[in-house]
Amino acid sequence: MALADLEGAERNEGGIETALGILKQRFGEQFQSGQALREQHAHTMTYIPAQLPDAVVFPQATEQVQEIVRICAEHHVPVIPFGTGTSLEGGVNAPAGGISVDLMQMNQILGVNSEDLDVVLQPGVTREDLNVYLRDKGLFFPIDPGANASLGGMASTRASGTNAVRYGTMRDNVINLTAVMPDGRIVKTGNRARKSSAGYDLTRLLVGSEGTLGIITEMTLKLYGIPENISSGVCQFPTVKDACNTTIMAMQAGLPLARIELLDALLVEMVNNYSGLAYDQQPTLFLEFHGTDDGVAEQTALFGEIASEFGGSQIQWVDTVEARNKLWKARHDAYYAMLAHRPGCQGIATDACVPISRLAECIAETVQDVEELNLIAPIVGHVGDGNFHVSPLVMMDDADEVSRAETMIERLNLRTIAMEGTCTGEHGIGQGKRRFLKLEHGTGADVMAAIKKSIDPHNIMNPGKVVSLGQAI
Amino acid sequence: MALADLEGAERNEGGIETALGILKQRFGEQFQSGQALREQHAHTMTYIPAQLPDAVVFPQATEQVQEIVRICAEHHVPVIPFGTGTSLEGGVNAPAGGISVDLMQMNQILGVNSEDLDVVLQPGVTREDLNVYLRDKGLFFPIDPGANASLGGMASTRASGTNAVRYGTMRDNVINLTAVMPDGRIVKTGNRARKSSAGYDLTRLLVGSEGTLGIITEMTLKLYGIPENISSGVCQFPTVKDACNTTIMAMQAGLPLARIELLDALLVEMVNNYSGLAYDQQPTLFLEFHGTDDGVAEQTALFGEIASEFGGSQIQWVDTVEARNKLWKARHDAYYAMLAHRPGCQGIATDACVPISRLAECIAETVQDVEELNLIAPIVGHVGDGNFHVSPLVMMDDADEVSRAETMIERLNLRTIAMEGTCTGEHGIGQGKRRFLKLEHGTGADVMAAIKKSIDPHNIMNPGKVVSLGQAI
Repeated sequence: MALADLEGAERNEGGIETALGILKQRFGEQFQSGQALREQHAHTMTYIPAQLPDAVVFPQATEQVQEIVRICAEHHVPVIPFGTGTSLEGGVNAPAGGISVDLMQMNQILGVNSEDLDVVLQPGVTREDLNVYLRDKGLFFPIDPGANASLGGMASTRASGTNAVRYGTMRDNVINLTAVMPDGRIVKTGNRARKSSAGYDLTRLLVGSEGTLGIITEMTLKLYGIPENISSGVCQFPTVKDACNTTIMAMQAGLPLARIELLDALLVEMVNNYSGLAYDQQPTLFLEFHGTDDGVAEQTALFGEIASEFGGSQIQWVDTVEARNKLWKARHDAYYAMLAHRPGCQGIATDACVPISRLAECIAETVQDVEELNLIAPIVGHVGDGNFHVSPLVMMDDADEVSRAETMIERLNLRTIAMEGTCTGEHGIGQGKRRFLKLEHGTGADVMAAIKKSIDPHNIMNPGKVVSLGQAI
Repeated sequence: MALADLEGAERNEGGIETALGILKQRFGEQFQSGQALREQHAHTMTYIPAQLPDAVVFPQATEQVQEIVRICAEHHVPVIPFGTGTSLEGGVNAPAGGISVDLMQMNQILGVNSEDLDVVLQPGVTREDLNVYLRDKGLFFPIDPGANASLGGMASTRASGTNAVRYGTMRDNVINLTAVMPDGRIVKTGNRARKSSAGYDLTRLLVGSEGTLGIITEMTLKLYGIPENISSGVCQFPTVKDACNTTIMAMQAGLPLARIELLDALLVEMVNNYSGLAYDQQPTLFLEFHGTDDGVAEQTALFGEIASEFGGSQIQWVDTVEARNKLWKARHDAYYAMLAHRPGCQGIATDACVPISRLAECIAETVQDVEELNLIAPIVGHVGDGNFHVSPLVMMDDADEVSRAETMIERLNLRTIAMEGTCTGEHGIGQGKRRFLKLEHGTGADVMAAIKKSIDPHNIMNPGKVVSLGQAI
């Protein structure tokens, strides 16, 4: 047992050397191979050790991505797409070396269709850049994984985050995409119609494939009108179970909550310290309601009734835009708050997602493990989706503590799968969860491997991630 | 040019004969090969000529489907899944013969998870049966393609219908499914979590694959609470364009309409006659609003304001449950109303879906074609999705009229694709739209063919539908 599966294909030294020469000549300043830059492109934000690419190329157009892929395909050299490097599961590592394709110079917003509520853009646009651009059009893009990630990276990992409970995930909000396939062909997966029954759903096949089937070079995303009323607030509970039960009841009642985020008492303490807040150290829900003025009033009244049944406090409203931004920034900075709490530690990301009816039970059993194994592991969760992150804060040079964290994570993922859930609600498989894919999907993992082999027979697209090719048909 | 592409693989006489013998012995009364039954299983509801299977088998469990598929796989014999036979594009035809797998004896509802708002069921359950079953639990399944189709068939064609504008399509409402793959393996594509980033999205790959990648034998579907208030009404307009513009404005304003269905003046006349209604012969929107009492009041007031800007009438409310059911039955019976209008004709289904900003223009140019080509072709549309059906009513023994209908349909599909839309919003490709798949998807059609070849190398799963294998990589 180990935390992550860092194995890749074998390094193809000769092919890499040849491709490096060709790419350097072809791309000039857009080609870089300095140590620091290569290190930065294998940065994974987490405990997973860096595995450096041999070089980084910065394409500026789909056709340049196509050229890079064609060169790499000819010489059987890995290509690893790179956005903001905020992946949590080793998605940008290069276990067999190869070329990191940094898409951040492809950051143009190509067109907003206000009547159709969509936007066409390049993958290097970040979610914050997009929302700044949209603000004076009265529109916004809701998917918010916390990090200011690139939208291409978010599509690749099927990201979601705090707003998914109402607006869905990247699965639901990518209307079509353009990708360079492993043989260099350019494929556009669909059109701008809101629905289609025309053949296999290539959009949804590429979304969440983590760069293992193709490199996304353009996308059309759904947009939404900025709600007339956005209200945020905080509601505190005696126990995590009470907070979970309130969430379950609210979802069942059909309340269209925009955000409902659980923090356990330990995390509230950490967030208070890191972000200068002063909430009681109790299990807490951070809430947001979107709608018309009347609609929000109705939602909040109903939520309040449900919460009070489970011992919840009055909602503490966060009235100004500044206070609201501070609240959500504190939520997004929770990971840094954890790291600050225990200097020198690594936070090991987990990403369990279960049917909401099992959420309280899943968290309770996990907390029991954390206590039994003597770990420090605060909890934050997108509880409306049944998704929570318990993050052991581990000193990686303490082999015993690492081993205890491994045990906790193993139990968590097995428990989650046994409860008809998934080991990853939104982070992706990458390297960190590859050993759980077969366990979770059974024969489905074999079908995934067969698809990978048929589309990428030489395994050049982000090798060593998601699928294990030994499993193919 | 022809209306549909009826070509399949060549008949494998020897294999079929062998498989028939084995299946007959194994399945006894569950195996049938009478002419009338075989004809009924190639019934396509439309103009497409029937192509009969050699036999029909009625499995009662996933393992029986697996047995059938294994026998057929061994002898390279086509298997064609069959539900209620309400496919519009020749989806159940057997162009190369083979075995029709009738799933209607697999019609058990296996469990409702009220807390998680989902249901686990077999594919032969129809949408009406499911909603009758759910009613006293306060839950419902919204996807409503008109016909009382089987839910397995609806998943296979990525069906949608009148409620999709609010609740999405089968793409959005299948949480996971179990399928028997072409080699007989049983694959479960996911779990009951509401979201997942664990590998390729096999659920979405199977949904909409029209039985060409596997046979669905179990599904988990999303459910919704029955709204406190359901209000239906009718709003009439001077022109189709006014009705479209009202729709566009309502969608942009974020109005969560549950249904917004356009009928042109000709269709209103037909529906009045067939279903005993008495609306003015004007372009008309049939509407439905779901929500709390206050929420619906707010929605309807805003809709009324928008409609009046475009010359819309006051909303004529349909107050009783009986009247509401009559209204929507009339809408669902529109196809029969058309056929009754011109006895002996065939209605040729079209299924254009464009970005909503292009809807009025797309309809206007199509109406111009209809007039120029001297056709009778009423229009009904799920206009909130940009999806409309213009149905030429054709005497199939009038070669000139058939040819004019072909011209109209060819122009419509080319126009739709040029407007960044799709030739099929919800009916599927089947045989009827196969020649447009490559045009619409370009290199994407080749990727689809490659996937088909990797998963079904002997092309036994519903051959001759959706993909054209000459296009594979």
